[in-house]
Amino acid sequence: MLQSVDARTGSPVGAQFPESTPAEIDQAVAAAVAVADAFAATSAAQRASLLRALAVALEGSRESLVALADRETGLGLPRLNGELDRTAFQLRGFADVLDQGIAHAVVDDPAVAGAPPVGRPRLAKVRVPVGPVAMFSASNFPFAFSVLGGDTAAALAAGCPVVVKGHPAHPELTRQTVALAQGVVAAEGLPAGVFSLVQGGSIAVGVHLAQAPGITAIAFTGSFKGGTALAKIAADRPRPVPFYGELGSVNPLVVLPAAAEKNGAELANTLAGSICLGAGQFCTSPGVIVVQKDAASDAFVAAFAQALQALQPHTMLSSAIRSTFDKGVARWKSTASLKPLVDGSAEASAPPRPFLAEVQAADFIADHNLHEEVFGSAALVVRTASVEETLAVLRAIGGSLTVTLWGAETESEATRSLVRAATQIAGRVLFAGVPTGVAVTTAQHHGGPFPASTQPFTTSVGYAALDRFLRPVALQDAPDWLVARKGVPC
Amino acid sequence: MLQSVDARTGSPVGAQFPESTPAEIDQAVAAAVAVADAFAATSAAQRASLLRALAVALEGSRESLVALADRETGLGLPRLNGELDRTAFQLRGFADVLDQGIAHAVVDDPAVAGAPPVGRPRLAKVRVPVGPVAMFSASNFPFAFSVLGGDTAAALAAGCPVVVKGHPAHPELTRQTVALAQGVVAAEGLPAGVFSLVQGGSIAVGVHLAQAPGITAIAFTGSFKGGTALAKIAADRPRPVPFYGELGSVNPLVVLPAAAEKNGAELANTLAGSICLGAGQFCTSPGVIVVQKDAASDAFVAAFAQALQALQPHTMLSSAIRSTFDKGVARWKSTASLKPLVDGSAEASAPPRPFLAEVQAADFIADHNLHEEVFGSAALVVRTASVEETLAVLRAIGGSLTVTLWGAETESEATRSLVRAATQIAGRVLFAGVPTGVAVTTAQHHGGPFPASTQPFTTSVGYAALDRFLRPVALQDAPDWLVARKGVPC
Repeated sequence: MLQSVDARTGSPVGAQFPESTPAEIDQAVAAAVAVADAFAATSAAQRASLLRALAVALEGSRESLVALADRETGLGLPRLNGELDRTAFQLRGFADVLDQGIAHAVVDDPAVAGAPPVGRPRLAKVRVPVGPVAMFSASNFPFAFSVLGGDTAAALAAGCPVVVKGHPAHPELTRQTVALAQGVVAAEGLPAGVFSLVQGGSIAVGVHLAQAPGITAIAFTGSFKGGTALAKIAADRPRPVPFYGELGSVNPLVVLPAAAEKNGAELANTLAGSICLGAGQFCTSPGVIVVQKDAASDAFVAAFAQALQALQPHTMLSSAIRSTFDKGVARWKSTASLKPLVDGSAEASAPPRPFLAEVQAADFIADHNLHEEVFGSAALVVRTASVEETLAVLRAIGGSLTVTLWGAETESEATRSLVRAATQIAGRVLFAGVPTGVAVTTAQHHGGPFPASTQPFTTSVGYAALDRFLRPVALQDAPDWLVARKGVPC
Repeated sequence: MLQSVDARTGSPVGAQFPESTPAEIDQAVAAAVAVADAFAATSAAQRASLLRALAVALEGSRESLVALADRETGLGLPRLNGELDRTAFQLRGFADVLDQGIAHAVVDDPAVAGAPPVGRPRLAKVRVPVGPVAMFSASNFPFAFSVLGGDTAAALAAGCPVVVKGHPAHPELTRQTVALAQGVVAAEGLPAGVFSLVQGGSIAVGVHLAQAPGITAIAFTGSFKGGTALAKIAADRPRPVPFYGELGSVNPLVVLPAAAEKNGAELANTLAGSICLGAGQFCTSPGVIVVQKDAASDAFVAAFAQALQALQPHTMLSSAIRSTFDKGVARWKSTASLKPLVDGSAEASAPPRPFLAEVQAADFIADHNLHEEVFGSAALVVRTASVEETLAVLRAIGGSLTVTLWGAETESEATRSLVRAATQIAGRVLFAGVPTGVAVTTAQHHGGPFPASTQPFTTSVGYAALDRFLRPVALQDAPDWLVARKGVPC
């Protein structure tokens, strides 16, 4: 059973309601399959109109949706209003991308007379929507990575029907956002199967959806455990389908001596703020801070610990997430190699306290448990004696959504080697600011080597997210009537 | 032990030589890892020079290599000379693509002032070479999908060191081509680790290579059985890596009544030739011919069977492949629903005879065994009573490198639905000619839904093959010195 819960009080709100049954899930997928061809054949303009209408509808219900989201997630009105803005911006952004003709672009190679390899037939590469997409919502972005978030926007833009798996931590917001979206789909003259919801807190619901034969691709944002389990299910289907999983990461942030010396105090405050933002419930929250051992770096660590000590994260998204955070912190506290710097444990009924501990590079590298994310306002300061040790720390982490390098403004063998190591393990490398906050733009890449993503060549944020749902097909010697469709599927 | 064998006589030539040991495989991977950063940081011009020098070297040793390939594969001099031409053309083609700046292209989004979601930092998306690539050679293209084939060309173009797993069916050609390539690598002033060979006929060699921690991507062309086994190994590594497997398919070819009426006799000859080309040992060989039931179609089937009966395929690549072909044909012959049309069984010591049988659509759809490829000059004619049944046949096949539609020149609901079904299950859809022969060009897409490929959004032929080895990374607020590198890795 599903139950809306007030995140701050832990009290249930309203009646329980049932999970989707296997038959209901099959029905949602069947509806998506039934309309897939017709939706694939819509024009880019029709889908752009749908996306813009969804943005308008979201904004039109802003007050009630944000209030409901705040009750179910505890993320606070300013953040949630900003997140709704971003979600609407993103829907409109994909509409703009459709207007530019990207979805139906044709790579046209004219025929060349003569024998191969120079001679060739006419080949035109188009892209076809992959088909019905299962979209697994995340708990930590109830708008931007939930019902009408980036994955949904990208799939609809591509011409793929979407079956949303709602997140059980915000079930009432999910239902209301889906109702809104379904109204828009109908008003745009599109069939209902374009957009369906399945809901449930049990693993069985997600597994049944991921195994449904009609599903042709899966988008997922969530935990490492859930994501790797679903990835395996996607790969073990009689017909495997792409599984685009964004599983979070520890987002190492390297503070080079140059940065600690130049403006260490300011950076310490910025970093502490990033770690406590949204109670640390971001896939891009910095979890490993790599700092060398010198006077300026020591001062930075002291200022950073002091700044973090002074901050108070808000209530976490759910009691389950809070419990996992408390266990992660307890695990760290029982690790002999860690020296706590900020250790404000809190009662489960009170908001969480940030946690920070220091560890020597060699101990960090040797202990694989320390490379795992603790989701929430918790981080490790890893002290390194040299650039070589910093490189070894990055390599031990192995895969991350982001790496941040502060103080790499001057080119040197050291900064080059750090950039090299950072680009080898991350999908985004920052040289200023903090990794929390992911701009929605064409050049964005949100995804990194395992365990950050299951498909690190793809992105789940930014307009290249569209590429996950458009499969290339080469048309050889296509007849005139097909050429005249200019890349729009039949 | 490895042994060069004369494909036509089955006689061993020269002495046996040992497989690569685990230590030797580790050494090859370690050498690739050691040079990966330096090779990634080469300019596009340096890599283009390498590719062109490899093409020149191949052509310079044409006579001896083609003679050796002919002895080890039995594919014949004209075909092998053509294949060498294609391989050199492809190496030069990737060099041209590098000259165009594609590998180091930067997607640059300038900073926008103001608060998010509109405001954003500067983001520049570049691509970084993924790292050492394990390349599994195929037996059926001893040049174009072997040591210096498309996968190697694409990986080297991307800036990735390559560890070639040689195919045991042409071990001496493999050794000589590798020696040639290693000479070119040295002459170009590049470190030896850029290009290594491991060899062996046992499964253990491939498994050890696929599991080597230093390998960051795997390219494979070969059987369904071998490819799916290696795909699982790649996914089960502690750090999974992309597995680009091209596993072959049945390549349905639909002869619509319009085509059968217009020039059925000519098409029948063309099709028979395609099935016997290279003794049917192409991943794009047409294995399922879908023909409706009307007078023109009946005449086409009769002419096609007659044309096929008159052809004599040459010796197959190896006794193992021949044995698998014979078993596949025997399985078909024991299937009650099949009516043999061309059934010239041959002694194992003689070249194979083509095989053709007719089956009704309903029987084909119901029998999953019939959807599996029989590698060689063997095909099924599936008779359908309607376009709907033809669509059902295509959907039952589910995934293929190619679908060919003959007679779709006129737009109608029927041709639209056929194009739709074809693009949904294939990576390339042809409207004239035969699927054997794959042009190397930008618009090519060689890859299709499972079981044709393990990564159907990517291609193993054509210049987009490069995309498999270049992983996107977004640089946020990059310092000037890094911007000045214009996308070239550090």
